[in-house]
Amino acid sequence: MDDRKPTVCLVGVGLIAGSLGQALRRRGFAGEVVGLGRNAASLARAVQCGAIHRYALEPSDAVSDADLVILGVPLGATDAVFEAIRDHLPAHAVITDVGSAKGCVVESARSRLGEALCRFVPGHPIAGTEHSGVEAAFDHLFVDRRVILTPLPETDPRATERVRAMWQAVGAEVRTMSVAHHDRVLAITSHLPHMLAFGLVDSLSRNPDHEEILQYAAGGFRDFTRIASSDPVMWRDICLGNRQALLDALHAYREDLEVLARQVEQADAEGLEAIFHNAKHTRDAYLEWFEGTATGERTDDGE
Amino acid sequence: MDDRKPTVCLVGVGLIAGSLGQALRRRGFAGEVVGLGRNAASLARAVQCGAIHRYALEPSDAVSDADLVILGVPLGATDAVFEAIRDHLPAHAVITDVGSAKGCVVESARSRLGEALCRFVPGHPIAGTEHSGVEAAFDHLFVDRRVILTPLPETDPRATERVRAMWQAVGAEVRTMSVAHHDRVLAITSHLPHMLAFGLVDSLSRNPDHEEILQYAAGGFRDFTRIASSDPVMWRDICLGNRQALLDALHAYREDLEVLARQVEQADAEGLEAIFHNAKHTRDAYLEWFEGTATGERTDDGE
Repeated sequence: MDDRKPTVCLVGVGLIAGSLGQALRRRGFAGEVVGLGRNAASLARAVQCGAIHRYALEPSDAVSDADLVILGVPLGATDAVFEAIRDHLPAHAVITDVGSAKGCVVESARSRLGEALCRFVPGHPIAGTEHSGVEAAFDHLFVDRRVILTPLPETDPRATERVRAMWQAVGAEVRTMSVAHHDRVLAITSHLPHMLAFGLVDSLSRNPDHEEILQYAAGGFRDFTRIASSDPVMWRDICLGNRQALLDALHAYREDLEVLARQVEQADAEGLEAIFHNAKHTRDAYLEWFEGTATGERTDDGE
Repeated sequence: MDDRKPTVCLVGVGLIAGSLGQALRRRGFAGEVVGLGRNAASLARAVQCGAIHRYALEPSDAVSDADLVILGVPLGATDAVFEAIRDHLPAHAVITDVGSAKGCVVESARSRLGEALCRFVPGHPIAGTEHSGVEAAFDHLFVDRRVILTPLPETDPRATERVRAMWQAVGAEVRTMSVAHHDRVLAITSHLPHMLAFGLVDSLSRNPDHEEILQYAAGGFRDFTRIASSDPVMWRDICLGNRQALLDALHAYREDLEVLARQVEQADAEGLEAIFHNAKHTRDAYLEWFEGTATGERTDDGE
């Protein structure tokens, strides 16, 4: 990187990458933040929002000078992006991503990145909201949030440290774990709840009386279904990208739901109370920990 | 009611009845608000919170002068309360309740209230939070919230009007519907989501790694599971009190979840995206309506 200023390239400048760009600049990143994408209007808004300095529509114009390339696209676009940027990557460039599932991204990287694989650090900031697009970006999105990195056996430790330092610079706490563990954990805490919330609202919408019924839905319903307002394409890709772990979580949940249904059917007061007590206890303990560690927006979201 | 001051008796002074007592007094109710319960310490706190003027532990001391008796107890206690107060009710007293399921309360009333049945108006304010107890009460809980009354064929219309006027006086919007319709609607918008949230957290807590897993749960999980911090005994009673409608809703949901699981299994991108799109569209439309009508606390809850 010598004496020229470092360049960060954000591929896809939506909520996450946009917030990262804003945060880097706000926290004194001295280099240039370049956006790469297909939609000039959206990239122009990203410039206005302070997420990037400039943008390009051609990989060669955005990636060739980059020291750090960060993929912020829906998982379904990962393959195509790796393919498009590969031949333009400088030999020293570190590559990372922000995808909510890691197994599918790693598979993609293995098949597309060639020798650059050793400089690829799979990553996932556990932060976001149900909104999308750079207009929803904000520079403190990552403060006190966890970012999971899942470096591969091939990954150059210096690349991992570079990515870790970047996330720490914007206020996040970085953890590392295996790809498989990440995907199992996130299936449970995030992907399954999203499926359940999308499923509930879809199910309700098929009721011919749903407009009347929704008039009697209140805050509990609103919060329970908040994540069902998330971006459908992004979540389609996550569900498919983390298919096996999600199916495992869904299977376990459906079995537990069957037990619960049987308890209601059999009017098993004791059994129901035990489950509700246990859930409340677990959730209250989690909340105490969560509120103690997180200081971000009330609407911050984990994906 | 002549020239003496009207008396309202709250049987069980928790979040809902306590908030109602505070709201009535705050909105200029000129009479006396009396609490009836079994726990003197809790009732003393209700006096301190401004929810009631005084309390009694014996039905005869609280109900004999009452013009309006409002049950604010868990559904499972309804039978016993009707039994305990019946012989002390003045001949003109109007009785109502705030229970989240109505069929079971009506059944209880039919078997216990005798001739007072015609002055009983089943009611349900769609308001609350995941907290319980009079300490969590606040006087604007019902402002712009809906209250559903489900008067019976036997109900004296004057009793219904009396209860309607009370709820309107504390800022609520009152609707009437049949008992069965209420129970079907609330099973879908409230009881099912509570079951699903309790079920998810319980399921998670059985995972040996749940403490580690929860470290990666963020705002989406927190909001999705907020209602799993609700009172276990109250919810046990609601699930059993609205058993059939809840089972119907649960059954329909489990079928839809099976479809969703199959779509993930078969990597049906189009099908998943259609469901997620539809859910987002329905939820966003609901939200627009909800935010447009409700002005209460962000944490207000429907039960």
